[in-house]
Amino acid sequence: MTVLPPGAATPLASAEQILERLFKPTGVPGVHIRSGAYEDIVEALGRFITRLRPEGAEVYRAPPVVSRALIEKAGYLKSFPHLLGCVCALSGGEAQIEAAVDRFASGAGRWTDDVEATDLLLAPAACYPIYPIAAELGTTPPQGFVFDIAGDCFRREPSQDIDRLQSFRMREFVAVGGPEAIQAFRESWIARAPDIAGALGLPHRIEAASDPFFGRIGQMIGRFQVAQSLKFELLIPVRSAQSPTACMSFNYHRDQFGLTWDIRTSDGEAAHTACVAFGLDRLAVALFATHGVEARQWPEAVRRALGL
Amino acid sequence: MTVLPPGAATPLASAEQILERLFKPTGVPGVHIRSGAYEDIVEALGRFITRLRPEGAEVYRAPPVVSRALIEKAGYLKSFPHLLGCVCALSGGEAQIEAAVDRFASGAGRWTDDVEATDLLLAPAACYPIYPIAAELGTTPPQGFVFDIAGDCFRREPSQDIDRLQSFRMREFVAVGGPEAIQAFRESWIARAPDIAGALGLPHRIEAASDPFFGRIGQMIGRFQVAQSLKFELLIPVRSAQSPTACMSFNYHRDQFGLTWDIRTSDGEAAHTACVAFGLDRLAVALFATHGVEARQWPEAVRRALGL
Repeated sequence: MTVLPPGAATPLASAEQILERLFKPTGVPGVHIRSGAYEDIVEALGRFITRLRPEGAEVYRAPPVVSRALIEKAGYLKSFPHLLGCVCALSGGEAQIEAAVDRFASGAGRWTDDVEATDLLLAPAACYPIYPIAAELGTTPPQGFVFDIAGDCFRREPSQDIDRLQSFRMREFVAVGGPEAIQAFRESWIARAPDIAGALGLPHRIEAASDPFFGRIGQMIGRFQVAQSLKFELLIPVRSAQSPTACMSFNYHRDQFGLTWDIRTSDGEAAHTACVAFGLDRLAVALFATHGVEARQWPEAVRRALGL
Repeated sequence: MTVLPPGAATPLASAEQILERLFKPTGVPGVHIRSGAYEDIVEALGRFITRLRPEGAEVYRAPPVVSRALIEKAGYLKSFPHLLGCVCALSGGEAQIEAAVDRFASGAGRWTDDVEATDLLLAPAACYPIYPIAAELGTTPPQGFVFDIAGDCFRREPSQDIDRLQSFRMREFVAVGGPEAIQAFRESWIARAPDIAGALGLPHRIEAASDPFFGRIGQMIGRFQVAQSLKFELLIPVRSAQSPTACMSFNYHRDQFGLTWDIRTSDGEAAHTACVAFGLDRLAVALFATHGVEARQWPEAVRRALGL
């Protein structure tokens, strides 16, 4: 575990400065319009991460919406029902839709009272579409399958915090295979992470963590997750050094998704899976917080690492 | 108006070939997982369009969700209520959310019956966040303000057609200013469009068009739109030469958004607005349809134009 260096007590740019210089507000907490200067850094981070991509990884990109059936099958609803965004629409006939619009236009009520759930959700994480794709590939090879997937994610947790967006981008390397290969994959990324953060000049530490599982039973699941070391996070000071922000995570799902999608190793066992996730917006905000709102003034080594 | 060249009667790659080689299905019509080979072209198109960007354009990028209040204020609901995706969520207390999940888990019903509309919609077009940003800039200068905006858009029109996605990416150059400057902006893009399509080796023609307004009154609005030449589209054969696909559009909104957001020109009149929209996914699919599913075998001039 790396500790935060002593000189990194206070981020250089405040949340207020970052919001003012790099975003435009939308009126909705945790949803911002992004400036070109901000997007340049998100794109540079994308290229930086591509250079870290494991050899042979299959590349996929996901749209911001995902099949509801897929997320239901993944068991997401049991763990994080409070975070899910469901795509709903006015689905009646012309008269019914007209009535909803008239009600809204006349100020008599809300048109949204008539929307119905579609077969789509907003993607809560980038990796879910990968598991059925892996299942289609057949028995996993000894070194496992590796994928590079990214997409816009949504979690319904409105917040004024600069590091907690409702809509954010996630990039993941996902490995699917036998338990030893998958654990080694995750270990190797935990071992590499300090160098990755270091190349970007980001103070950091790595800690065991838990996901924000729903409800009282969820809190027990979270404690189990920590006890079993199923999740580690790379933490970087964004709002403060006291409460650093998880900007990468290293997740081991054991055979949960292998069983769900019937992905098998050559010895017939359910495949294990793991992923290393890069929070692109959190890393970008961490860069601005650490090095200042003006990317042209960032340390030369950081600019070089990002190809700026 | 340019006509489709005679040699361009049939796209080289079929919709089936494109789906098979460049996408993975999600089980939902018009929502696909994108391969790396496909995304390479979408990214190359992005860089190609950046080189066309008007000097001085302010760059913004939008997340896939947008404030519901913004879209309601824009009048979208009157015109296209049937296309809107509303973000809904389980918003009750712990017991209520638990009940919804239990109902689903036990097979007794749908958890989605309990979701409620949030303050967010899926963005139906990229340009809407620009108008309040323009309003904040104050009186428009003689040549107008110009913006470069892009984002993931959603329209609820499930289809098996390769050129009609529910989730797709749109890039727009938006101009805001006096009527003459804005009309000249749009005219200049209509004049440039054949060269743009030509550089990409895409057979094309430009036609007056109308948006898919809702209902019977909407059909009248659509006829008015055509009669007033408020919308032109660049059409490219994707599914067939007989029914070419709108891949760019050139839209003149007159003073609709200027009035709505109180954007004023220096003589105190409501500003006019226009936009040129690039359908990034449609252009990418058009490239594969026209030149084949293997980008390495595309004509050298097209590859050069795209920086491949």
